[in-house]
Amino acid sequence: MELKPLALTMGDPAGIGGELTIRAWQALRVSGPCFVALDDPQRLSTAPTVEITSFAEAPSLFAKALPVLAINLAEPATPGHPNKANARAVIASIERAAALCLNGEASAMVTNPINKAALYDAGFGYPGHTEFLAALTGAQGKQIMMLASPDLRVVPVTVHASLRNSIAMLTTDAIVAAARTAAAALRREFGMTHPRLAVAGLNPHAGEQGALGDEETTIIMPAIGTLRAEGIDVSGPWPPDTMFTRTARARYDAAICMYHDQALIPLKTLAMDHGVNVTLGLPIVRTSPDHGTAYDIAGKGIADPSSLIAAIKLAAELAHARG
Amino acid sequence: MELKPLALTMGDPAGIGGELTIRAWQALRVSGPCFVALDDPQRLSTAPTVEITSFAEAPSLFAKALPVLAINLAEPATPGHPNKANARAVIASIERAAALCLNGEASAMVTNPINKAALYDAGFGYPGHTEFLAALTGAQGKQIMMLASPDLRVVPVTVHASLRNSIAMLTTDAIVAAARTAAAALRREFGMTHPRLAVAGLNPHAGEQGALGDEETTIIMPAIGTLRAEGIDVSGPWPPDTMFTRTARARYDAAICMYHDQALIPLKTLAMDHGVNVTLGLPIVRTSPDHGTAYDIAGKGIADPSSLIAAIKLAAELAHARG
Repeated sequence: MELKPLALTMGDPAGIGGELTIRAWQALRVSGPCFVALDDPQRLSTAPTVEITSFAEAPSLFAKALPVLAINLAEPATPGHPNKANARAVIASIERAAALCLNGEASAMVTNPINKAALYDAGFGYPGHTEFLAALTGAQGKQIMMLASPDLRVVPVTVHASLRNSIAMLTTDAIVAAARTAAAALRREFGMTHPRLAVAGLNPHAGEQGALGDEETTIIMPAIGTLRAEGIDVSGPWPPDTMFTRTARARYDAAICMYHDQALIPLKTLAMDHGVNVTLGLPIVRTSPDHGTAYDIAGKGIADPSSLIAAIKLAAELAHARG
Repeated sequence: MELKPLALTMGDPAGIGGELTIRAWQALRVSGPCFVALDDPQRLSTAPTVEITSFAEAPSLFAKALPVLAINLAEPATPGHPNKANARAVIASIERAAALCLNGEASAMVTNPINKAALYDAGFGYPGHTEFLAALTGAQGKQIMMLASPDLRVVPVTVHASLRNSIAMLTTDAIVAAARTAAAALRREFGMTHPRLAVAGLNPHAGEQGALGDEETTIIMPAIGTLRAEGIDVSGPWPPDTMFTRTARARYDAAICMYHDQALIPLKTLAMDHGVNVTLGLPIVRTSPDHGTAYDIAGKGIADPSSLIAAIKLAAELAHARG
């Protein structure tokens, strides 16, 4: 079955999203996957664009022009200078993409980076994309972030908190919930029949039998016990510094990490610019590039489209596996 | 000037040190650098060995046989089973190597891994090699560990403590001391005229202007200010997850890291088995392989000598630069 087109949001129009959208179309227009930009056609005019009103029109046009479902900006965007007047359009692009995924016109959505601060004044009441999409799609349970590259998949159990607070927030329940969601997604979206999870320790050498910290014993091992009792293939807690070598990576399909940088350091160190953020636990498929709005280089034509292109390709693969 | 031979200690005789010593000699006997094993010749008898009494004899013999300065074990070693009876010989090997470096017969020392627990009963009163060597050599100031690979050099400011305690132990003074020692070593032992240091943040995104933790502002930035005032080229605090990409690594000669795994995860993820531990701040040159005694594989002939070989080569380079 032919995959329905993907929906690509505009992201912050003052950021690098627009230029990356054009470069992604240039890279993918022949080979696919086909996507539709939910964006203002005016600001994409350095590429040939074609306005569509239904996603069904996109596949036959994609090789010749970037299909755009118009969501017009209130004011022209200035690279590097976020403009509150355009916040409503940014939000509308995300809402529209989610709705198109829910009604089946789009097979998945890919989000360009937003600047949350620029949206709060317009009434945006969520910490980020993920929570907004959970509300829009009526998602049950917990959403988690997986970062995926050709070399490694990581799931941080705690995310945007100071390192000190990340340790304080770490619980057996949070590890179990993240690992369950990861295992389910590896089966459903990644098409694995027997996904293997590796759980990292928190402390150097995974605590060295308590000499370097006890969270492995008090928090992490109970989580591993619970997960095994549910039939999930999970190993650990592993010493964090040796679990990302090539040899170690061959032994698992995703690493469950205790804090942001334990997951992100190996991912970004290995992935160069090909890391992709996947939101797990939504009823729809959503990926995003692993970078921000990059105001400092916006509009200069030097932003690297690799991560967005990888995000589009991965979204198509996940949507295909989900069927 | 011909470099004096290096001194290689026996390490725990129940660990993989002996077999690695033989494999390192096999790999280096033609090309050098020349080293002498301070070890029991009996247990090295699977290679051709030659007992020497003075280091000056070693260079002319090295291509044909492994030179050994005999330090006899009290009892034959059993792989995988540490034996307190041999603790005295393990300690004597380290003492002898340090003395040979101090008196100039050896150009540097390389240590095979020890098991501290097996030494404590014999009266060993130090947390590890580094503190013991500081005492033996009358070192002034603070010793720090640098881990070096072909891709990256890292210096962890806090080392063997739980992650929670590492955060609590982090101080401006500790960062300044580590960076000073690192800068001095990069000049003296690594022969750099203008070493560049990159200081990592502690928190995700280096704290995001305080939103994700304040240690960057309260602890790290004051350290950077002090170091700059001393004329040291230091940048940061950098977001930890993006500072180890290939592009970012090109901008510095060593990364000053806030905790063990922030330094060790990227090092080991990139280095495969070629990471080397260098002790900075001693009056002698000392390196060691980046692994432990590995009792589980000792005696099986499968231990990888790459890190020990890299440690021997690097010790020779550092001794040569120090002159």
